[in-house]
Amino acid sequence: MANNHMLHLKKLGINTYKEAVIYMREDCHICRSEGFEAQARIQIAHKNQSVLATLNTIETDLLKPNEASLSKYAWDLLNAKEGDEIQISHPKPLISLDYIRAKIYGHELNENEIDAIVKDVVDGSLSDIHISAFLAASSGNRLNKKEILRLTQSMIDVGTRLAWPSKLVVDKHCVGGLPGNRTSIIVVPIVTAFGLIMPKTSSRAITSPAGTADTMEVIAPVDLDLATMRKVVERENGCIIWGGSVALSPADDILIRIERALDLDSEGQLVASILSKKIAAGSSHIVLDIPVGPTAKVRTLEAAKILQDYLEIIGKELGVEVRGIFTDGSQPVGRGIGPALEAKDVLAVLQGDKHAPQDLRERALTLAGLVLEFSPKVKTGAGKQLAQDILDSGQAWKKFQAICSAQGGIFEPPSAQHTYIVRSISQGKIEAVDNRYLTRIAKLAGAPKSKAAGVEFLTPIGTEVISEQPLFVIHSETKGELEYAVNFLEQGHQFIQIKEHE
Amino acid sequence: MANNHMLHLKKLGINTYKEAVIYMREDCHICRSEGFEAQARIQIAHKNQSVLATLNTIETDLLKPNEASLSKYAWDLLNAKEGDEIQISHPKPLISLDYIRAKIYGHELNENEIDAIVKDVVDGSLSDIHISAFLAASSGNRLNKKEILRLTQSMIDVGTRLAWPSKLVVDKHCVGGLPGNRTSIIVVPIVTAFGLIMPKTSSRAITSPAGTADTMEVIAPVDLDLATMRKVVERENGCIIWGGSVALSPADDILIRIERALDLDSEGQLVASILSKKIAAGSSHIVLDIPVGPTAKVRTLEAAKILQDYLEIIGKELGVEVRGIFTDGSQPVGRGIGPALEAKDVLAVLQGDKHAPQDLRERALTLAGLVLEFSPKVKTGAGKQLAQDILDSGQAWKKFQAICSAQGGIFEPPSAQHTYIVRSISQGKIEAVDNRYLTRIAKLAGAPKSKAAGVEFLTPIGTEVISEQPLFVIHSETKGELEYAVNFLEQGHQFIQIKEHE
Repeated sequence: MANNHMLHLKKLGINTYKEAVIYMREDCHICRSEGFEAQARIQIAHKNQSVLATLNTIETDLLKPNEASLSKYAWDLLNAKEGDEIQISHPKPLISLDYIRAKIYGHELNENEIDAIVKDVVDGSLSDIHISAFLAASSGNRLNKKEILRLTQSMIDVGTRLAWPSKLVVDKHCVGGLPGNRTSIIVVPIVTAFGLIMPKTSSRAITSPAGTADTMEVIAPVDLDLATMRKVVERENGCIIWGGSVALSPADDILIRIERALDLDSEGQLVASILSKKIAAGSSHIVLDIPVGPTAKVRTLEAAKILQDYLEIIGKELGVEVRGIFTDGSQPVGRGIGPALEAKDVLAVLQGDKHAPQDLRERALTLAGLVLEFSPKVKTGAGKQLAQDILDSGQAWKKFQAICSAQGGIFEPPSAQHTYIVRSISQGKIEAVDNRYLTRIAKLAGAPKSKAAGVEFLTPIGTEVISEQPLFVIHSETKGELEYAVNFLEQGHQFIQIKEHE
Repeated sequence: MANNHMLHLKKLGINTYKEAVIYMREDCHICRSEGFEAQARIQIAHKNQSVLATLNTIETDLLKPNEASLSKYAWDLLNAKEGDEIQISHPKPLISLDYIRAKIYGHELNENEIDAIVKDVVDGSLSDIHISAFLAASSGNRLNKKEILRLTQSMIDVGTRLAWPSKLVVDKHCVGGLPGNRTSIIVVPIVTAFGLIMPKTSSRAITSPAGTADTMEVIAPVDLDLATMRKVVERENGCIIWGGSVALSPADDILIRIERALDLDSEGQLVASILSKKIAAGSSHIVLDIPVGPTAKVRTLEAAKILQDYLEIIGKELGVEVRGIFTDGSQPVGRGIGPALEAKDVLAVLQGDKHAPQDLRERALTLAGLVLEFSPKVKTGAGKQLAQDILDSGQAWKKFQAICSAQGGIFEPPSAQHTYIVRSISQGKIEAVDNRYLTRIAKLAGAPKSKAAGVEFLTPIGTEVISEQPLFVIHSETKGELEYAVNFLEQGHQFIQIKEHE
């Protein structure tokens, strides 16, 4: 490549999130001589680093002809400073794009092919358009077990893998899809109070109104670096932090960003995403909560068994013990849906508040019990009672406060300014609840970005209601978002089925 | 939505190609109150128009807190001027994204669902990430006949449909995949010299080193508006222009842009793309050239028959007569691969140059003959001889010059500054040629963006060659691009198989 393809960096301060963009004058000598036009992919070299970026051309004097600028993400990737020199060239042909096309046409990918795709995802060679096509082509059961295994392994290989000074490192994860199912924040203090190591890295929401990291974030800092995470775990046996901040699975962080834009969460990617993060976090024994219900992410026991099988077998191949259990996915867990509302439920359980949602408490105890049973000191079947003792004695709440404090402090969850109460129009017994619609309302109301936004669900299945009784309350931080949620409601979907008494 | 969500437009002059982007200060009151972060999708209203755009946030004083800027594409969509007011709001939920997800999971889409996707593609509601997922999910035979029919109809409905003062409006199209197959530019003058109406709108390259529009562009202007196109056709019976400039199928223009980024050209999209453009151009009778060969786009006669069947049946459903014919797709047509090199071949045939590539001439005469046979004045089987008479008499060349002149002038195709000759390392007879690798070399050398770049292919199948005899010549406008092509060559792929004599 010609060596005079040099430009000086100028800071414009444009944030494109995780997309590398380069800004160059459309009439600069490089664009003219190389025929570069807007949306071209461009190779940028800076000192001994290099990234691929998408070109946006500048048609004004925002830049001089010998200047270029970068999006924030590209600045960070290159560790560049204003005034630095960069070298511009055509990108090399991307072999991984051939493999993505092969997958689009339904072919099985081999290990090298999957490795090449994951590597190019992480180093930014593949654009969002390419990654989106890969995700679409891998969904709908189009990855087989061998491919999922390799995808998981590749995703582990390109990230950091933690090691802990214990053979037994436990974890617990929910495959998601059930609003309010925030048990991890209760399980961690119970299990670590007992003495097990549980370095919990959790995700932000992909398609839901809150991930565990979103919920925990309204109680304590979750955006910890690796060194701080280590200190917290050394001191308290465990932590509850956002996995993205320690970049354990950088490939997963990028894939999840595109999945969120597509509102897509496919089985193969799900397995690879969960296991790669857990194994990278150094876990040896994992309990996986798989909620099953007609409107949960996993709708049938059959589908749940396939997922359980994938998780357990692929886990075993990768040297970890996975125990997948099925739980009731017919309705939300607890009352809150959305970060702050869920945090309030969790705190109530930990504090032993007698008004705390009992379903959340029960699930957390069941899961904590199974995790405890990984310990050679705990007999099979005795875990749940042990978990309950630790919770009811206040040890778990004490441990939770200690973990929060180690993570940087404990906060009061915020409350929303705007609320709207949805009332029953008839009298009878609640028969069914549509998780997907409640999720949608919570998201329209602003969750998870607006921390206090969401839905407060008051009438679980079996509740007897009278006419005009509140069924749920929509919480929103802005009037506009509340309006979206209410407008959607007024389209007349039936979220909650009530059987009227004859 | 709150009505005080107003910002003033400032011009920054950023060109993102066809992606609507809005630039806002990350600390402006709207971002803060609505929780908007980089990559959020934002609804922008301006006077009585509205677009969806992706947010890029600004972390410097490039914008004042009450200012916003737009990418060129968004400025144009909104017809906005500097200083104008825009209103910002959250986008409504995109129902078409549900349908794309359904397709990802392998479900058949109904008419309304396909209409909604195409509408949202055209008005910019779906982002590049969404469109990419739709294309990936529709590839690999995942659209059935009914879906392709509706996709074609939807794409026609959202564009302009031309009408001509004749019942017989002919066209000819090649499904592509064969380098150098530039017959249309020869067929149009033959057929229009005979008196038929042939308003040819052609494409730019999707995955090839040149589309007909790219090749024609080095000879005459192809970027005509609808009014000028009409004038040309009224005066000369036909034209050869770029279809994108008259926006006959705006959905296709957007889909093709993403397909190009993916280097993907799937069968269902191919059928919809071809037929929507031809029908929108007002064609009633269409000849479709389907080259078949082991390294062409269509590899087997079986696949060709399925494609032919789709094109003919869906054409019929939409009221046009389509005749698909199979041609030899085993090697490039003519000598040139790349816009200017192909243009030189075409001009040689039209001018009756005795060194003109005979294979290109033969194919063009066969296709022109079939098109002529759509005329009630021409007997079945007599078309080819008639085409040859028109070409050999110089009428076609005269007509071609008249068409160029009506389109705005005739140019001399450019020549490349840098060349590299690839020579035979053995003696024998050429047995096979890999179209895909030659295409790749031509693209690495800079085609189609660099007009003079490409490959000059000298030794078709059957040629006897001696050691050191030139097999093909790589042409490039820059040294850097020539190097890419040569580097690729040196990786040792076998492009041309030679059977050595014993």
